[in-house]
Amino acid sequence: MNGVVALERVRIVLSRTSHPGNIGAAARAMKTMGFTELYLVEPASFPDPVADARASGADDILRRARVVGSLEEALHGTVFSAAVTGRRREWSVPARLVREAAPEMLSFTAQGDVALVFGTETSGLTNDEVALCSMPVTIPANPDFPSLNLGAAVQLLCYELRMAALDPVAVAEPAGALASFEEIEGFHRHLLQAMTASGFHNPDNPKRLVPRVRRLFGRIRLEREEINILRGILGALERKPD
Amino acid sequence: MNGVVALERVRIVLSRTSHPGNIGAAARAMKTMGFTELYLVEPASFPDPVADARASGADDILRRARVVGSLEEALHGTVFSAAVTGRRREWSVPARLVREAAPEMLSFTAQGDVALVFGTETSGLTNDEVALCSMPVTIPANPDFPSLNLGAAVQLLCYELRMAALDPVAVAEPAGALASFEEIEGFHRHLLQAMTASGFHNPDNPKRLVPRVRRLFGRIRLEREEINILRGILGALERKPD
Repeated sequence: MNGVVALERVRIVLSRTSHPGNIGAAARAMKTMGFTELYLVEPASFPDPVADARASGADDILRRARVVGSLEEALHGTVFSAAVTGRRREWSVPARLVREAAPEMLSFTAQGDVALVFGTETSGLTNDEVALCSMPVTIPANPDFPSLNLGAAVQLLCYELRMAALDPVAVAEPAGALASFEEIEGFHRHLLQAMTASGFHNPDNPKRLVPRVRRLFGRIRLEREEINILRGILGALERKPD
Repeated sequence: MNGVVALERVRIVLSRTSHPGNIGAAARAMKTMGFTELYLVEPASFPDPVADARASGADDILRRARVVGSLEEALHGTVFSAAVTGRRREWSVPARLVREAAPEMLSFTAQGDVALVFGTETSGLTNDEVALCSMPVTIPANPDFPSLNLGAAVQLLCYELRMAALDPVAVAEPAGALASFEEIEGFHRHLLQAMTASGFHNPDNPKRLVPRVRRLFGRIRLEREEINILRGILGALERKPD
């Protein structure tokens, strides 16, 4: 796939944005880099004339933006999602630098839609939101003042993907078909059920088991075939005679 | 010099900015990437509460910003300046991509202050302003919609310099005086002669030896002293008794 065309398969997902001006700035940033698909999870105010003003010419992006009720909904149909995160989280997979991750993220567009997920202006993404994504990515900002404006963060991420798209070497295709968001979530549900039924996981005293398991599988880009294998193993174990 | 410290030797110069909000956004973008020196050439309104609000926490940058009456004044004392330009200009040097130019720009901080120069929101830099700078640099934006917000452009440029600063290989400032073109060519001639005389290189069946050797040494920015050492070694080997 042509690298720049691939950018149209990348969704920019803004979760619970407070200020409509930042939605407009994000739309403008997207358009300058060749992106078209904007998803808004429960925005505080949208549509909004302040967003239109800040988009200054990227109002087509705003008009086609989809407003959804949950991050799950925004990720529906994607094969890969990156959570853009600033701070270090105790239990999550270590965030990769945006520059390192960009060529790989772009390569996944050969298999389906990819999402870049941004949290609120003040507190970013919640741990639950990060856990829904395939991988956390980060911008190596000044540790004494890491608070990028939301529109500026969207600009940087889109720029890194565009730079990867313009580099024909970088856009290598992954070997096997990636599992979709739904397939991965289906596996996690299956695993949780199997862990609970077997007594390994106690929902009344969960400790950190679920996030740890998510962290483990989050480090691999699971392929569809691998999900099938894992679920096959789970199924076989569940059926195993005592 | 430590790469991140070098960023404090990079001036962000905004020429004739119309909207004080963009000055605030630029200050915030600078601070997130570790920059401190802001120069404002004839801003339409500064200081301004709108700039303070958009700086959200980077007001120290605004307080130390220097307001000057001309671009010449802003560039006074610099050893290098990059004009950030979007459009192609008929007569100027072709603009280099920001990513390519960033490590080199940063390396010049070892010799003095460096400037990144941004024009107005609507028309960018004038040809005269570009001509005052050492080199035009550009962001490879969507050709159908290349108009980055000023704050977003500052964010991208500062990010690229920060990425270069965090890469120890890229910043490796030349410890000593760099070898000149003539000195490097003299070394290659010497090396070729030594390789040929020793029988290692067969001019009748050269394979890819010479381009490989050039590729190898081309990756290092050889210093004059290093050329002397290399040629000293070559000379000693040539003289070595059988």
